[in-house]
Amino acid sequence: MTNLSEIKITGIQTFDVRFPTSKSLDGSDAMNPDPDYSAAYLTLQTNFLHLQGVSLVFTIGRGNDLQLSAIERLAIKVKGLTLDQIFNDNLKIYMDLGSDSQYRWLGPEYGIFHMARGAVSNALWDLLAKANQKPLWRYLAELEPKELVNVIDFSYLEDGLNADEALEILELARDSKQVNISRAISEGLPAYTTSPGWLGYDDQKMLQLTRKAVEDGFKLIKFKCGLSLKDDRRRLSLVREKFGKELLVAVDANQKWGVDEAIDWINELKEFDLSWVEEPTHPEDVVGHSQIAAAVAPTPIATGEMAGSRITFKQLLKLDGQAIVQIDATRVGGVNENLAIVLMARKFKKPICPHAGGVGLCEMVQHLAFFDAVAVSGFKNLRYIEFVDHLHEHFKYPVEIQNGCYQAPKNPGMNADMKESSVSRYTHNLDKKEML
Amino acid sequence: MTNLSEIKITGIQTFDVRFPTSKSLDGSDAMNPDPDYSAAYLTLQTNFLHLQGVSLVFTIGRGNDLQLSAIERLAIKVKGLTLDQIFNDNLKIYMDLGSDSQYRWLGPEYGIFHMARGAVSNALWDLLAKANQKPLWRYLAELEPKELVNVIDFSYLEDGLNADEALEILELARDSKQVNISRAISEGLPAYTTSPGWLGYDDQKMLQLTRKAVEDGFKLIKFKCGLSLKDDRRRLSLVREKFGKELLVAVDANQKWGVDEAIDWINELKEFDLSWVEEPTHPEDVVGHSQIAAAVAPTPIATGEMAGSRITFKQLLKLDGQAIVQIDATRVGGVNENLAIVLMARKFKKPICPHAGGVGLCEMVQHLAFFDAVAVSGFKNLRYIEFVDHLHEHFKYPVEIQNGCYQAPKNPGMNADMKESSVSRYTHNLDKKEML
Repeated sequence: MTNLSEIKITGIQTFDVRFPTSKSLDGSDAMNPDPDYSAAYLTLQTNFLHLQGVSLVFTIGRGNDLQLSAIERLAIKVKGLTLDQIFNDNLKIYMDLGSDSQYRWLGPEYGIFHMARGAVSNALWDLLAKANQKPLWRYLAELEPKELVNVIDFSYLEDGLNADEALEILELARDSKQVNISRAISEGLPAYTTSPGWLGYDDQKMLQLTRKAVEDGFKLIKFKCGLSLKDDRRRLSLVREKFGKELLVAVDANQKWGVDEAIDWINELKEFDLSWVEEPTHPEDVVGHSQIAAAVAPTPIATGEMAGSRITFKQLLKLDGQAIVQIDATRVGGVNENLAIVLMARKFKKPICPHAGGVGLCEMVQHLAFFDAVAVSGFKNLRYIEFVDHLHEHFKYPVEIQNGCYQAPKNPGMNADMKESSVSRYTHNLDKKEML
Repeated sequence: MTNLSEIKITGIQTFDVRFPTSKSLDGSDAMNPDPDYSAAYLTLQTNFLHLQGVSLVFTIGRGNDLQLSAIERLAIKVKGLTLDQIFNDNLKIYMDLGSDSQYRWLGPEYGIFHMARGAVSNALWDLLAKANQKPLWRYLAELEPKELVNVIDFSYLEDGLNADEALEILELARDSKQVNISRAISEGLPAYTTSPGWLGYDDQKMLQLTRKAVEDGFKLIKFKCGLSLKDDRRRLSLVREKFGKELLVAVDANQKWGVDEAIDWINELKEFDLSWVEEPTHPEDVVGHSQIAAAVAPTPIATGEMAGSRITFKQLLKLDGQAIVQIDATRVGGVNENLAIVLMARKFKKPICPHAGGVGLCEMVQHLAFFDAVAVSGFKNLRYIEFVDHLHEHFKYPVEIQNGCYQAPKNPGMNADMKESSVSRYTHNLDKKEML
């Protein structure tokens, strides 16, 4: 293998990739009626022609160009770095990506510039894993516990998780790591699917797609909810009637409710024995989540896909506001920050059920789930990774689902790589109207 | 007066205005060592040549162009509206500014697009007040309680403040409104100043400027802190030594600490009898603020200038995480959202001490403080409005401070109007390097 010090980032390219998904109502929910699934797509070129670091931030259309512009401004900071610097000075580089106080003002540590930082972090980890010829989950799992702890920014975090606790968690899991890796490769990890449950679908299409999902081996299916209690009850009754008690059923309100409204609505769905209710209210209302969770117990509350940073997760965990931790690959500060969240969830004994779908989110987040399974929390926890069967055809190494399970990714890196033909076909030309 | 239905928004102009303040270290603090105070500046033209709605979002430099781009994309939605529509359909228009789910994904309800929504909201209120030939504070104060409640978005808020409670607060204050208006005009409202306290200043400059501030009539002075406990203690000892116990002294850590660190640090400053400690940790860590507040009592904790939305304020108030509510004119969703925050603070019996400084923040936020004093919480509360004596010369109607007090603004509107000469002189040309 090439020496890491010989590999250097020599160039940066970005692409504004948008798919016109609003035309088919794929992805429609209570808050997002007409998303155009998009990627602010980043590639880091190296002096080795076929080796590049790739990542993206998922957006739902308009504004993707602003997200891309933020990524460009941060990515320039890593140009010229060699891979041994990226490995040895990883935390320093990550901190530097967040250190521009003028950009921080527009957050701080959430929103467009924080996601941009995440995009660069993910691309760097992609590059490290590729250079080591391992899929990211395995590359991470085979690092030393201390090496992992050393890449985590513990600022604003220590009252939730400190470095000693993080190290202890990783050390504890160390002995079962090799066994877990073998098991992950032979069994995969359970997926759940949201494909049948979009609000834009009528009952017949929903039931048809649910039938197909069950036949495909999915044990848990999630349905969008929150626009009308009557509709939610009808849809869930139909599902329970046709598929019985064995099917695990979750619902997702996509932030539709206020706190009191959420409590009343969720309690009206108690009879459906839901595996979880997702995003009952605004994702930054950690106090609200905690009140809702207490008032609807034992129905589990899930959230996290739009939680802006580790600081939100920390508060949710401290207040018992989430029973299920839904990390997202591109919302927070990339692998560096998601490592902290995964370890903190373990400390608070809450399972990770990653958010996916979108564009490339399944491809990317599966690595964090497999890492969690083999090197952090093992196989005892409930763990379902979201799966939506859209847009995978645009990726070079699409996820592989067999009998309702994600198969352990084999290709090196984080697998955000899109096909060149898809990138060029769906590159968006900014409309004058969009820019005023 | 012209009929409101005859006045129409006919055009939108935006300007990327940046002042090179990093050269003088004005505005330096523990987290923001070299800000270039900037304004993403918005004007709404009407069919009446001399009537335009003006507002801005304050940023500290790089990224101001992205903020401006977000403003442009939302401002286009109000083109063509007449002033009677803006008055009668105010909440509908405000909701429409936040309703683009594709932009919302990049927040939600915080960050660049939320501040952009605030910019448009503020410009519309500026226009309404100007058309009614009143300063904004007085225009708002003289609206009917019901008219004010009708412009508030209570979503995600009702567990903190609902419409009935808001109405009750305003009705209660109604009888003393005219007396309060007279008092506000004759007495003004107390200011505090941060001008002497920037971290970039040496002890001599700090003491010199403090002396001048005391001579100018300021009763409360705020010093930046948080880089070194030794330095903080030395600076505060010097201030107490030279100016005695009578001077009210606050400190501002600008989010420098973690939760436990904040508790220890603040307790080491107890002997200085601080009026408040500001921004001890990350502004979205509401749980952390609540723990800090409890552990350092009776030292009051202040925060809010970077709280992303009403939802953060709601949680801080519910958890008793802030003793002092520091609203900012341009961080949240404009007048519409700040009305909700002012009323909620009143419900929780916490005083409003607005954040200002920056570019035009004093000019704009004073209106919210005067409105609070005359129409919401009266004159009994502690209330100091931040004042920093920078950059006022660029404004058409600069704030007027006399004997340490803000004088009630007399000019129509919200007073964000900059001089044309300043706008053109400081309009920023995007550097190629900045754009990659």
